[in-house]
Amino acid sequence: MTKQPKAVVLLSGGLDSATVLALALDQGFRPITLTFRYGQRHALEIDAAAKIANRAAVERHAVVDIDLRAFGGSALTADIAVPKGRSAAEIGGGIPVTYVPARNTIFLSFALALAETSGAFDIFIGVNALDYSGYPDCRPEYIQAFEKVMTLATKAGVEGGADGGRNFRLHTPLLQWSKAEIIRQGTRLGVDYAGTLSCYDPATDGRHCGLCDACQLRRKGFQDAGIDDPTGYAA
Amino acid sequence: MTKQPKAVVLLSGGLDSATVLALALDQGFRPITLTFRYGQRHALEIDAAAKIANRAAVERHAVVDIDLRAFGGSALTADIAVPKGRSAAEIGGGIPVTYVPARNTIFLSFALALAETSGAFDIFIGVNALDYSGYPDCRPEYIQAFEKVMTLATKAGVEGGADGGRNFRLHTPLLQWSKAEIIRQGTRLGVDYAGTLSCYDPATDGRHCGLCDACQLRRKGFQDAGIDDPTGYAA
Repeated sequence: MTKQPKAVVLLSGGLDSATVLALALDQGFRPITLTFRYGQRHALEIDAAAKIANRAAVERHAVVDIDLRAFGGSALTADIAVPKGRSAAEIGGGIPVTYVPARNTIFLSFALALAETSGAFDIFIGVNALDYSGYPDCRPEYIQAFEKVMTLATKAGVEGGADGGRNFRLHTPLLQWSKAEIIRQGTRLGVDYAGTLSCYDPATDGRHCGLCDACQLRRKGFQDAGIDDPTGYAA
Repeated sequence: MTKQPKAVVLLSGGLDSATVLALALDQGFRPITLTFRYGQRHALEIDAAAKIANRAAVERHAVVDIDLRAFGGSALTADIAVPKGRSAAEIGGGIPVTYVPARNTIFLSFALALAETSGAFDIFIGVNALDYSGYPDCRPEYIQAFEKVMTLATKAGVEGGADGGRNFRLHTPLLQWSKAEIIRQGTRLGVDYAGTLSCYDPATDGRHCGLCDACQLRRKGFQDAGIDDPTGYAA
């Protein structure tokens, strides 16, 4: 039996990254999941991530604290109101205030450190260029540029070095998928979407608000996929 | 009078980054200094960085906590002995155990977040490809790859975006300088090297150990530059 390769999977607790974890498992990787605590308004998604990782029986689930509040500038980390009830055109147009400066770059840097110390050469991240076209660090050209950095940055990736050197790979299986396609693929692989949390601003009882951009995209995704939405929405 | 552009300067408290700060000031930038607390064995260099920033009257001095110990794998963050008394050939050959996985990538990611939220498009880092040729993330090709990531990753860097978009620049003025050249240039600009700390493992009284790789490179640099070394060495 061939030993399965390890892979670091960024796991937020949301619908997208839960699907990515299922895809990594389906591709034969042994996932090490990585969740960040970064001054979000609620810790519910960190709990959701831990439960998803536990259910998938991952090799290791790591939680890393990073304080992005020092840098301000985002509705997810500072005191800016999360937009509610925006139209599809508004959601698709321009960079939203929920953009966190350099967030994916910081996340991927820690993922790279974890991969190198774990002996993994594969990193999975659930970025999506369609539903979240407003985020610059979800674009294919950004992903390609960071993949190059990963191999150049590391002892493990140095070509011709003492360890031989290998290329790191940054997997973005959701990059060109619609939300409906993500949900269809995840459902095929048995993802329990009831245990995922997408909302930027959940109700006090833990339910999805139903009005923020993420809730609207989630709800429409289930509708478009023709799959029953197990999510409880407050509105 | 033209307003001087801001720049984020990574400041470790060592000789190299103190020189970089002086060079950024000399080039007309208003520096915002950024120091990391990351599970080093001693906090003396963090104090040294704060004093250097204060002396240079920087716009802002930011200290960010990051816990690299979760990732292990380095003499600077874990319980691996710092090598002492190595020969020049040993220092120059291969990747040392003091290598921290993905460290510069993590540092530069936070610098990018700080730059974007501060309105800076320039980041200075004191990496050096000669004296520390063993670190993969000090190589010119790594620096170029990360510079590309910076512009692609950010709202501020998106070309043709709502804000117009600008390229970020990653300045590495020390990249091809010898330690002696660094010291000569810094001395010309009035850097107070007595206030810098290079040692990986200082004595209990705060003096440089004199035996680790960093101390040996520092001592030899002053000798080669023909400049009096203000540093107190324990051995």
